[in-house]
This record gives sequence, C-alpha cells and structure tokens, in this order.
Amino acid sequence: MPDFLQQLKQYSKLINEALDDLIPPSSDYPELIHEAMRYSLMAGGKRLRPALVIGAAQAVGCNYERVLPTACAFELIHTYSLIHDDLPAMDDDDYRRGKPTCHKVYGEAMAILAGNALLTLAFELIAKNADTVPAELVLRVIREVAVAAGSKGLVGGQAVDIVSSSENVSKEVLEYIHRHKTGALLRAAVRCGAILGGADEKQLTALTTYAENLGLAFQIVDDILDVKGDSSKIGKSVGSDEKNKKATYPAVYGLKAAEQKVIQLTENAIKALEMFGKESDFLRSAAYFNANRDF
Amino acid sequence: MPDFLQQLKQYSKLINEALDDLIPPSSDYPELIHEAMRYSLMAGGKRLRPALVIGAAQAVGCNYERVLPTACAFELIHTYSLIHDDLPAMDDDDYRRGKPTCHKVYGEAMAILAGNALLTLAFELIAKNADTVPAELVLRVIREVAVAAGSKGLVGGQAVDIVSSSENVSKEVLEYIHRHKTGALLRAAVRCGAILGGADEKQLTALTTYAENLGLAFQIVDDILDVKGDSSKIGKSVGSDEKNKKATYPAVYGLKAAEQKVIQLTENAIKALEMFGKESDFLRSAAYFNANRDF
Repeated sequence: MPDFLQQLKQYSKLINEALDDLIPPSSDYPELIHEAMRYSLMAGGKRLRPALVIGAAQAVGCNYERVLPTACAFELIHTYSLIHDDLPAMDDDDYRRGKPTCHKVYGEAMAILAGNALLTLAFELIAKNADTVPAELVLRVIREVAVAAGSKGLVGGQAVDIVSSSENVSKEVLEYIHRHKTGALLRAAVRCGAILGGADEKQLTALTTYAENLGLAFQIVDDILDVKGDSSKIGKSVGSDEKNKKATYPAVYGLKAAEQKVIQLTENAIKALEMFGKESDFLRSAAYFNANRDF
Repeated sequence: MPDFLQQLKQYSKLINEALDDLIPPSSDYPELIHEAMRYSLMAGGKRLRPALVIGAAQAVGCNYERVLPTACAFELIHTYSLIHDDLPAMDDDDYRRGKPTCHKVYGEAMAILAGNALLTLAFELIAKNADTVPAELVLRVIREVAVAAGSKGLVGGQAVDIVSSSENVSKEVLEYIHRHKTGALLRAAVRCGAILGGADEKQLTALTTYAENLGLAFQIVDDILDVKGDSSKIGKSVGSDEKNKKATYPAVYGLKAAEQKVIQLTENAIKALEMFGKESDFLRSAAYFNANRDF
C-alpha cells in the first residue's frame, strides 16, 4: 500500500495548483475580499476533503482530473466554515492552522463576507464540472453538497454545537453534532467523487458506509488531540474545547472509550471497502492514517 | 396595463406559498436554525426579485410554475444578504421590514448561520428546477447566480460598501457598490427567469439591459427614500445612511440629480422592452412603479 502522507502530498499539490487557478487573484477588484479569501484558503490545511473526492473517484476507476473543480469546491466550503466558526460571535478563536484567523487580520465584516464568497464560489466551481461530466450528474452533486452544507448538515451541526456545552449535552446530541458539523461534508466528499466518477448504486452505498465511519472517527480523533495533542503539530491551542466547554467525545465518554470507538469505526470503514481492489488504497490508507495521526 | 401592485400581490402569494412549502418547517431539528431562517424570510418584503424571475419568464412566453423554485431561491439569497448586512459587524441595524433584525432575536451566531443556510438552500432549490427544465439550462442558471452573489457580485458590492463612506467615495466607487450590492442580483433574477423560460440571445440581451437600468434606478430610489421617505412605510429608520456615513447617490450627486437619474434609467429600462408585447407588461409596470414608489 502506498504511503498515505506521500500520496496526500501529491494530491495536495494538484489541489493547491487548481485552487490557485480557480480562485480570483488578490489583484482582482475588490482586492480586499479576494485577499481575505486567499489568506484563509492558502493558510495550509491537510486538503483531506478534496483528497477524498479524488480518492473516491479513483476507487470507481475515474481519473482525478474529472473531479478536480468539485474537489476544490469542498476545500472552499470547509474553509468558509472555519472562517465563520472562528468569529467572535461563534468560537472566538485567534489562531487557525498556526496563523492568525481571518477576522484577526481583515476584521469581522470582511471575514463574514470572505466566508460567504467562498461558499458561493464552491457552487460555481461544481457547475464547471459540466465541461467534462453529464449535466444530470453535476446537478445531483450540487444537491448533495447543498444538503450536506445546509441546515440539516454542516450548518445544522454548528447550530446545535453553539447552543450545547459539555455540561448539558446528551450522547445523542454529541453524535448529531459530530455527524453533521464534520461528518456531513466528509460523507458528501466521498459520495460526490464517486457520483462524478460514475459509481453504480452498490459502490455508492459501500463508499457511503466507509465515509460515515471515517467521518465520525475523524472528529473523535480531533477531540482526542484537543485533550492530549501537541499544539505545535495541530496548529491551534490544545485544551480549547475544554475552555469553550465544547461537547466532545472524551468529555462525554472518557478518553479510553473514545480511543476504542476510533478503532471500531476504522475497522468498519475498512470493511466497507472490501468490494474494491487496489484502486481504493488511498481511501483505505486514509482510514488507517486517521486512527494514528497526531495532527 | 394591469395595476402593478395588484399583480405583485398575486405573485407574492404564489411565492410565499412556495417558500412555505420549500423551506424546512420550524419543527424540523435543529429547530432554532429553521425558526431563524423562517423568521427573516417571512418577515414581509416586496418579493421583488422572485417576481422579476416570473416576469422575465413570462416575457419570453413561459409559465410561472416552471421557474418557481428558482424564483424562491432569489428571495433566499436576498434575505441572507439582509441578515448578514444587519449584523453588528456590518451595518448594525436593529430593525428590518419593521421587525427586530434576526440577530436581535436569535443572537449573532444563529443569525450568521441562518444566512449561510439560506444561501446554501438557494442552490438546492435551483437544482430542483431540473424536474421541469433541461439540466444544461439549470446549470447555466446556477453559474449565473453564483457569479451574481459572489465576490464580483453581491458580496463584492458589500465589501466595497463597508470600506467606503460618504466622505471618501468617488462616483465610480458609488456606482460599483450600487451595481453590485443591489444590481447584480436583480440583473440575475431577470436573466435567470429568461434563461429558464427559453429566451433566445437577442431577448436575453434586451432583458439584461432592462434589468441593469432597473437595478440601478431601484437602488437610487432606496437612497432617496432614506433621505426623504416615511419610516413607517419603508419599514426601517429614515436617515440611517447618513448616520452610518453610507455612500449614496443623493450624498454624492445631490437629491435633484438623483431624481433625474431615476427618470433617465427608467426610460432606458422601458425602451429595452420594445421588442416585447403585452407579455412583458409586468416588467414594464415594475419600472414605472419603482420610479414613483414611496416604500
């Protein structure tokens, strides 16, 4: 199996080049909004969501080039959600990916607008996929993304998150937050890569199971790293969840149970890939890697 | 020519019913986000943008039912932009459409999220139009809307607006703000109604000229009403632009020149409709009505 980090680095390079190509340059008027968009988008980040779009497309035998604009769209939506999450009215974070957050550099108003513009541009990029993919498939992807990012997906998870705290959250609510705030977009990334790649329904079902297990495992690992991680590696303060009284898996279940849950979800994710061969190696190694990552 | 307000009222009824049908009910989990979305969406408003979508479709001989989801999408995007515009970090307004603004009722975080969810849902609704319209046309509309709402459209206009004030704004910058903050979405509403309605390129060009003139006239009338309007009719405080040192037409050109500009733009808009007959009466009466409205 190829080394996951090495493969991710290759994908990151492709994605960063495509992003640079698809996002208006900072010199385009109004300069400040494009600067703010690029500042947050190009601040680093693992590019996991776009890599999953590519990985899912490859699992069903499709070339990465066909899904590149949609892959970039997922990074735009992820970045928009981070910019807004960091706002004073939300989590009020000063650092993200090791750099001052968007609103610390450009002010709150411009940060809100930069997030909005990234979200909007995401749909424009997906629509661009129609150059190489049948229009019906592109529209299906647009519906998937809109549902995953909307009031019953990402935004729904954020809404429940801000009215919940570690003191009042039930296990059901915690799972809702995790499955929606992080899970929905990861799930959609895998599904949309598969749909654009021409997956049949059986393949799509298997990849959805993979993505749901990976997504929850991913968020639990994030929670665990916030308790016992190294802030220089994860690029933000350790202990911020506890400080903000965030609902987290370790807070509700304890650290040991959280770690066991990650192992179980990872096994489920790998099992869901049984019907695929070598062409799904990236997805397989992503699941293993997540379970053992320290950033 | 039918009475504009009577016709608008009929369209509003259709649009409000469709919105009620297409937006998740407040009882759907997470309730608070759906409540906040519905609160701002159902707080009144002229429903001008969706009515223009319908009017443009009718001008090219298409039934309103075919464009109803996209018409609603325009109202969602308009409402999202108002919710975010009213935030403390932006214009900091307490009242909108005669009611407390979204963040005054639901808090800043929920207002940001409600705006985001409305924007996202708009793209979901447009994609729904594929039930009755060829997928290629729907994708074209999605691209039009994304550009009109994005960093070189609505959001671009807002970005320039917040860094400008009546003291430092040039005529060029003022026109940029107006053409983008308000104009881009009105223009897209007309164009998308026409595209979904099956307009040929000649019709689309004429309707675009109509929309660009109407859009700028509409914003100048808004500026004028902020100087000399009746706050009980327009649903927000009079003089707020001056208080906020907003760049406005009357501030830059004087009231009289602003009023003359409205007349000239309205004539241009009417002239652009010359090639159409009775089927464009709604668009025609909209332009006349705008020039004389007091709310």
